[in-house]
Amino acid sequence: MTSDAILIASGPWDPVPWAAAVRALAPGRAVHIWPDLPDPERVGYLMAWQPPPEAFRAVPNLKAIFSLGAGVERIVFVDDLPDVPIARIVSDDLTQRMTEWVVLQVLLHHRRQLAYLDLQRARRWEELRQPAASEVRVGMMGLGVLGADAAEPLVRLGFQVAGWSRSPKTLPGVEGYSGADGLDAFLARTDILVCLLPLTHETRHILLMDLFGKLARDGALGGPVVINAGRGGLQVEADIAAAIGQGVLKGASLDVFETEPLDPASPLWGLDNVVITPHVAAFSDPKALTGQILDQIAAFEAGKPLKNLVDRAARY
Amino acid sequence: MTSDAILIASGPWDPVPWAAAVRALAPGRAVHIWPDLPDPERVGYLMAWQPPPEAFRAVPNLKAIFSLGAGVERIVFVDDLPDVPIARIVSDDLTQRMTEWVVLQVLLHHRRQLAYLDLQRARRWEELRQPAASEVRVGMMGLGVLGADAAEPLVRLGFQVAGWSRSPKTLPGVEGYSGADGLDAFLARTDILVCLLPLTHETRHILLMDLFGKLARDGALGGPVVINAGRGGLQVEADIAAAIGQGVLKGASLDVFETEPLDPASPLWGLDNVVITPHVAAFSDPKALTGQILDQIAAFEAGKPLKNLVDRAARY
Ligand SMILES: NC(=O)c1ccc[n+]([C@@H]2O[C@H](COP(=O)([O-])OP(=O)(O)OC[C@H]3O[C@@H](n4cnc5c(N)ncnc54)[C@H](OP(=O)(O)O)[C@@H]3O)[C@@H](O)[C@H]2O)c1
Ligand SMILES: NC(=O)c1ccc[n+]([C@@H]2O[C@H](COP(=O)([O-])OP(=O)(O)OC[C@H]3O[C@@H](n4cnc5c(N)ncnc54)[C@H](OP(=O)(O)O)[C@@H]3O)[C@@H](O)[C@H]2O)c1
Repeated sequence: MTSDAILIASGPWDPVPWAAAVRALAPGRAVHIWPDLPDPERVGYLMAWQPPPEAFRAVPNLKAIFSLGAGVERIVFVDDLPDVPIARIVSDDLTQRMTEWVVLQVLLHHRRQLAYLDLQRARRWEELRQPAASEVRVGMMGLGVLGADAAEPLVRLGFQVAGWSRSPKTLPGVEGYSGADGLDAFLARTDILVCLLPLTHETRHILLMDLFGKLARDGALGGPVVINAGRGGLQVEADIAAAIGQGVLKGASLDVFETEPLDPASPLWGLDNVVITPHVAAFSDPKALTGQILDQIAAFEAGKPLKNLVDRAARY
Repeated sequence: MTSDAILIASGPWDPVPWAAAVRALAPGRAVHIWPDLPDPERVGYLMAWQPPPEAFRAVPNLKAIFSLGAGVERIVFVDDLPDVPIARIVSDDLTQRMTEWVVLQVLLHHRRQLAYLDLQRARRWEELRQPAASEVRVGMMGLGVLGADAAEPLVRLGFQVAGWSRSPKTLPGVEGYSGADGLDAFLARTDILVCLLPLTHETRHILLMDLFGKLARDGALGGPVVINAGRGGLQVEADIAAAIGQGVLKGASLDVFETEPLDPASPLWGLDNVVITPHVAAFSDPKALTGQILDQIAAFEAGKPLKNLVDRAARY
C-alpha cells in the first residue's frame, strides 16, 4: 500500500521550505505543491495557508486539513468545504513570538516610547507623566491559546488584566468577562485593548468607532489604546483613522490589515501614535511546525484523534 | 521631649512633594528643606537625593540618612561622611517601573521595532528576520533588587538569561557568573547586555570599548546591544558613539548619562538604533516612598535595626 500524499497550498507564503521540511522529516511521503498535482486521487492531506478554494475540489480523497497558521478563516468559510477534520497549528514557538509582540506594544504605549523618540529627535530632555502599571487596565479580547499566554507576563508586570471570551474563562490574575452581554462592562474598564480574536461572522468589524467610544476615557494613560494582532477583518480601518484623528483613541498598534500588504496610500501608515508592523507579530516556522503536522498524520493513520481541531460550527 | 527633625536635601528634584508627604503622614514631625535650617541641632534624619556635601556638615546630631533613590553614589563618596547608618529606597513601585523599562528596551531591540518604525515612515511593507527569544542571550550586569526582578519576566518570555554580580547568585532560570574572573565568559555569551550596576570605584566606566568588543559577535541579532539604566558614570559615552559608528555595537538604550540633563550637542541623541530616555526608567514617587522612610524612622527610634542598609565598605 502506498501512503497518502500531502498537498501544500500556502497562498502568499513560499511553499518550498514547507515541502523541504516534509521531505527531510518523512522521506517516504509524496509531497506536491499546488497547482502541481500529478496524481490528485492520491492526495490524503492538505497543508494550507490561504488556499485557493479550487484546491479543495481538486483532491477528491482528502482525509484531513492542516492549517499552517493559527487562524483558519480562509479555510472554514470556503463553500462546499470537504467534510474532513481541520487541525490548526498550536505551537510554543508561535505563541511565544506573539506574546513578545503584545508585551512590547503594551509597554511601548504605557511608557510613551513614541513620544520619547520624538523628544529624542528634537534633542529635548523632558520627563513625561508616567503611571504605574497597577494604574493601567489591559483588556484581552480573546483568551484562547494566544490571549491567555500574553496575559500572563502582563499580570506579572503589574497591569490590571481582564479578558473577554465567548465562554467564561478563569485565569490566574485575570478578571473574566464573556459573551455579548459582558462586552460593554469589559470595554468600560479597559485602557489598553489587545485583540487576539479569530475572524468569524460574529467578530468581523468588531473594532469600530462605536466600540472605541465605549473604552475607558478616565484612565491613567489619558485615552484608550487599541492593539490588534488578530486579523485585519476584525477592524474598520477608516474608523481607526477617524478615532485617532478625533482623540477617541490615543494610540494603536496594528499588525494585521483588511488588505495585506497594506496599501502605501493607506492613511494608517502616518497616523499619530500608531505603530504598524507587517503581519509579523507571530511567525509560522516551517521547520518548527512541519514535525508537528507529520506527528498528527502519523497519529491519525494509527486511528488516534487529531489535536487542535477546529470547531466547524463555531468556525475557529 | 521634642522629636528629631527631618531635613530634606533633594538636589535637582522638587523637595516640596517630599515635605508635603512627611507633613501629611507625620504631622507632629518638624521637617525642613535645605538650605532653610532654623534649628540645625535638632535635625536627626536626612532624606537625601544628590545632597550638597555641606548639608552633612550643617547638622551635627544626624542619626541616620535615607536615600530617596536606589543609587547612593552621591552620598557614600562624600568626604567626612558622618558615621551613621545609611538606608536606601527599595520599593516595589520603583522596581516594577524599572522592570517595565528593561523589558520594553530588550523587546524593542529583539523585535527590531526601530527598524519597523523606519519602514513605517517610508510606507514599506517588509518582513525582517526575526529570531526566537530562545535564540537570544540576555546578560544582566548586576543581579541586585532591580536586576533580579527584571530577569524574571525575561526568563518567562523565553530568553536565555545570565547574570553577573560581585558575589555568586542563584536565581531560577538565570545562569550565574560573578566577580572579575567571571566577566569575560559572561560577556562572550551575551547578545543583549543590561546594566543595572551601582556606581562604585570598581564599576565606574566599566561600559567601554574594550568590554563592547568582548560581547558575542555571532549572535542571532546580528550584533550586540547595550542597555544601561544604572548610572551614567558606568559608561564611556565617546566609546558608545564609536562602537555604534564602527558596528561593534548594533544598538543601545540609555536612560542615564555622565552629565544630566544630556547636552543637546551630545552625539548620543542622533546615533543609529539608539534609544535615549531622560532618567525616567524608574521613578521615586514621594507619596509611595515617604511612608516607608517614616516607618523606618519609627522602627529605628524603637531600637529596631534599619532595613535596606548600604554597605559602607562596598559603597552600595
Ligand atoms: N498576527 C499574527 O501574526 C497572528 C498569528 C497567529 C494567530 N493570529 C490570530 O490570532 C487569533 C487567535 O488565535 P488563538 O490561537 O488564540 O485562537 P483560539 O485559541 O481559538 O482563541 C480564540 C479566542 O477568541 C474567543 N472568541 C472567539 N469568538 C468570540 C466571540 N464571538 N466573542 C467573544 N470571544 C470570542 C474564544 O473564546 P472561547 O475561549 O470561549 O472559545 C477564544 O478565547 C487567530 O484566530 C488568528 O486570527 C494572528
Ligand atoms: N535609571 C533609574 O531610574 C534608576 C533607578 C533606580 C536605580 N538605578 C540604579 O540601579 C542600580 C542598582 O540598583 P539595585 O537596587 O538593584 O542595587 P543592589 O540591590 O545594590 O544591586 C547591585 C548589584 O550590582 C552588583 N555589583 C555591585 N558591584 C559589583 C562589582 N564590582 N562587580 C560585579 N557586580 C557588582 C551587586 O552584586 P552582589 O549581588 O554580589 O552585591 C548586585 O547584584 C542603583 O545603584 C542605581 O544606580 C537607576
